[in-house]
Amino acid sequence: MHQPRIGILGTGAIGGFYGLMLAKAAQEVHFLLRSDYEQVAKHGLRVNSVTQGQLQLSPPIYRDAADMPPCDWIFIATKTTSNPDLVPAILKVAAPEAKIVLMQNGLGVEDALRPLLPGNLHLLGGLCFICAHRGEQGIIEHEAMGGINLAYHSGPASDPAQQLAIAQQAANWFKSAGLDANAMQDLATARWQKLVWNAPYNGLSVVLNSGTEALMQHPDTLALIQDIMQEVTGAARACGHPLPEDLVGKMLKNTQRMSDYLPSMYHDFALKRPMELEAIYERALQQAHQVGFAMPKTQMLLHSLKFLEQRSLSH
Amino acid sequence: MHQPRIGILGTGAIGGFYGLMLAKAAQEVHFLLRSDYEQVAKHGLRVNSVTQGQLQLSPPIYRDAADMPPCDWIFIATKTTSNPDLVPAILKVAAPEAKIVLMQNGLGVEDALRPLLPGNLHLLGGLCFICAHRGEQGIIEHEAMGGINLAYHSGPASDPAQQLAIAQQAANWFKSAGLDANAMQDLATARWQKLVWNAPYNGLSVVLNSGTEALMQHPDTLALIQDIMQEVTGAARACGHPLPEDLVGKMLKNTQRMSDYLPSMYHDFALKRPMELEAIYERALQQAHQVGFAMPKTQMLLHSLKFLEQRSLSH
Repeated sequence: MHQPRIGILGTGAIGGFYGLMLAKAAQEVHFLLRSDYEQVAKHGLRVNSVTQGQLQLSPPIYRDAADMPPCDWIFIATKTTSNPDLVPAILKVAAPEAKIVLMQNGLGVEDALRPLLPGNLHLLGGLCFICAHRGEQGIIEHEAMGGINLAYHSGPASDPAQQLAIAQQAANWFKSAGLDANAMQDLATARWQKLVWNAPYNGLSVVLNSGTEALMQHPDTLALIQDIMQEVTGAARACGHPLPEDLVGKMLKNTQRMSDYLPSMYHDFALKRPMELEAIYERALQQAHQVGFAMPKTQMLLHSLKFLEQRSLSH
Repeated sequence: MHQPRIGILGTGAIGGFYGLMLAKAAQEVHFLLRSDYEQVAKHGLRVNSVTQGQLQLSPPIYRDAADMPPCDWIFIATKTTSNPDLVPAILKVAAPEAKIVLMQNGLGVEDALRPLLPGNLHLLGGLCFICAHRGEQGIIEHEAMGGINLAYHSGPASDPAQQLAIAQQAANWFKSAGLDANAMQDLATARWQKLVWNAPYNGLSVVLNSGTEALMQHPDTLALIQDIMQEVTGAARACGHPLPEDLVGKMLKNTQRMSDYLPSMYHDFALKRPMELEAIYERALQQAHQVGFAMPKTQMLLHSLKFLEQRSLSH
């Protein structure tokens, strides 16, 4: 079996960082870029990493998915808001029985994409626990953490052991690059778990125009963050995906240790891009509603964000 | 019995408008002013009223409460945030057995002031249903409505019929000036009723930086406003003050008919003044909590406002 060829669709902070980590683990990695193409063609791709130091690489890069060689693994790190538009690129790049990994936030992103993909493609989710943002063109600033949880969603592998082995294969690459990577059996649990962080910090950073540090320092917003985290863990449990008892406490501690961070939704709103409201809020509220579990504060956050988004996009 | 002499402490939009209405009802009204004193001394006090047309008057005005004659009725229309500081002025102006009327928003404002007043003073609440703001110096812009509900709180009158008669006396003055004025038996019910409007619009106008019109037009904020109104009516009921069944629907309709309005808390925040968070939110949440009634969205609004206020006042 030849060494798997890996494609990265969406070389922003997430795609760039984890793609470089795969390259560091001696994998063959091809990157699809848009706005940073010229800069990376000249100077390579760089990560200024708080844990890994400065990494620089001049990997094969592409402007057009049609120019990429067939890839056995495709890691997708674009915004969930453009997933349907991404299907043609996936189909151009995917080798037969390729593994597609959605390194995206929120719930149900694989469910939404699956009907648009042929059945011979494996689909996985990758939950990235990382603080990173794009700095200057071609440079990724990695500020904290850097873990990833991987789990199988659907495709040719029907046996749970085989599904776990596929997720484990990717986890091992990241591990050998020094990251905290885990293969998980249940993707839905992995996604709810990540949502416990995303739900409070993303939305509150937009509504209250604030980074994580100030939100954690003020007792009122700290209480609010905890309440929203409890709503998400409660909803996960009610939906049949119980999370570890100490998860909320651990996440609060981790966030308190981080330096001030502006979540991705903050940047999306500031740049007048659509926010990932469906993936991060609407699907969680729908699933909780279906089992009769109330998430009033999460719902209030969504109401507020939809108001702000409409006003922002219409101006 | 001589004609009662009336004092207005705090001649902003509320004190100015309702004070002029009392003067219009042929009462003797004395106004305590601060920043607008010079202007009003020269040009009088003016109301540009949507319902009453232009009203202009040159009433007796004062910079210092010590210069005012003893008043039989004192209408207080300052911010609740400065109530304790107001006691010396009240004591200077109050005739024996004077009636003190707090024309202020929120819950428990009389309970908080009562211990600071001598027992021979009557204390009432006046709930003003009005859209008005200060325009140029000495000019009050009256945009919509203009009703007032009055109710007795505490003091020398212990008989409910006598208490109602006192509230009715003031209501009659406002009625004869053409306003929708009502004497109510139960002040707590009157205050909860007014809170149904204040709780959603004041806080959301600050957090979402928006007037009432946009908040009512967007389905998400309309839903949120309704939810918060339902929390307040539910809390009122749980605290033993049931409100009319159709109150929420009526308030929504009234607000939809108004032209765009920025509630007082919006102006307080914009001018970096303290917001009336204790009177409008904290006491309602405390009272509801004591009877085990949850107000999660109102609580989230308070959490958000306290965060914003601290950041605003510390910069």
